[in-house]
Amino acid sequence: MKVMVLLSGGMDSATCLGLALREEDEVWTVSFDYGQRHAIELAAAHAVAAHWGIAPERRLVVPLDHVFSGSALTGHADVPLARSQGEIGQDVPITYVPARNLVFLSIATALAEPLDVQALFIGANALDYSGYPDCRPAFLDAFARTAQLGTRSGIEGSGLVVRAPLLQMRKREIVLLGHELGVPFALTHSCYLGLRPACGQCDACQLRRKGFAEAGLTDPLPYASNA
Amino acid sequence: MKVMVLLSGGMDSATCLGLALREEDEVWTVSFDYGQRHAIELAAAHAVAAHWGIAPERRLVVPLDHVFSGSALTGHADVPLARSQGEIGQDVPITYVPARNLVFLSIATALAEPLDVQALFIGANALDYSGYPDCRPAFLDAFARTAQLGTRSGIEGSGLVVRAPLLQMRKREIVLLGHELGVPFALTHSCYLGLRPACGQCDACQLRRKGFAEAGLTDPLPYASNA
Repeated sequence: MKVMVLLSGGMDSATCLGLALREEDEVWTVSFDYGQRHAIELAAAHAVAAHWGIAPERRLVVPLDHVFSGSALTGHADVPLARSQGEIGQDVPITYVPARNLVFLSIATALAEPLDVQALFIGANALDYSGYPDCRPAFLDAFARTAQLGTRSGIEGSGLVVRAPLLQMRKREIVLLGHELGVPFALTHSCYLGLRPACGQCDACQLRRKGFAEAGLTDPLPYASNA
Repeated sequence: MKVMVLLSGGMDSATCLGLALREEDEVWTVSFDYGQRHAIELAAAHAVAAHWGIAPERRLVVPLDHVFSGSALTGHADVPLARSQGEIGQDVPITYVPARNLVFLSIATALAEPLDVQALFIGANALDYSGYPDCRPAFLDAFARTAQLGTRSGIEGSGLVVRAPLLQMRKREIVLLGHELGVPFALTHSCYLGLRPACGQCDACQLRRKGFAEAGLTDPLPYASNA
């Protein structure tokens, strides 16, 4: 099957890409340049895709200026640090980017249809995650139905499928799966602050480190010494 | 209510804007620069919004490069001309732009949420239309539900409403409503070929001319002499 993977450069989307490469015939990636604070993500996405030999013409990058605002990830608000595991995922955090996955999936749909791509892969995760509404199964199901109804291929019966293979996995399981798939974790990037060494204290760093710790594996990323 | 109108510069979105201005407290517009063949549309959107005195900071324009392809409206395929009324709207035409309204509504949602905009207005029309799947009620309903599920405001109960007040109107009724609202039809643009004078023969020109004729009103737009 010809598929397109939403690739942010984080460990989840990289693992999702690894799965797609193992299981599908032809894999494209799409990344978004949306003014994210951690623009280093895009370099990570590029490095991960290049590591696996995906041809440059199958790695799409969409510039999205003037679309996202009002989030600590795109603006100047402070990213919360060192929150407890109990706090993470309880509420929608200020790192929430309004309608981000909705926009990403919609644009991926627009790109996929003329290419006859049959499935979109997204590394959304609803368990060890940061509390974003657009990472939940109900949202993804509703999106898939909307894309079916709003596209020619959808109403003609051959529409796009949305796959979120990591949706019900714990971070620990994602680390183990990625390890098995040979995901180049050293090339991925998670830190909300966009730091290298990673800050180790934002929600994304904390979830990542917890996942590696619980999997009994070493995270190859360097972290700040005070993390 | 604070609302945002998707403004293409065509007669339907201009009428939709007129309705919003009559009924709502604060009206924003959003237009998309997506490489459409009829880029003259954007100038029309600007002119219509300026005519009604909408402040420049409330008129958003989103550049969308590299997103849409595979349509006669963005590529080099021929726009069909002089199709019969029976042919128009029967199938999805080659002027279909993949997932266009899905992308537009998604981005409008991303823009609206941090501004506390409470409703999106879209001039989609499912009767005298060109057969696009993303202009149908089922699609718009599914989108609204998806946006509710995928946004913070949606899951917190104050989410965005999607209004398509022209959805079940005939083109004739839209012309009459626009006339009553004082829509500056002379500033709007419909022709798929992006021509001035308008070609008069593409589906969009034909539907527009039929609407004015049936309403018994004169379309102020000039048409090519052979139209």
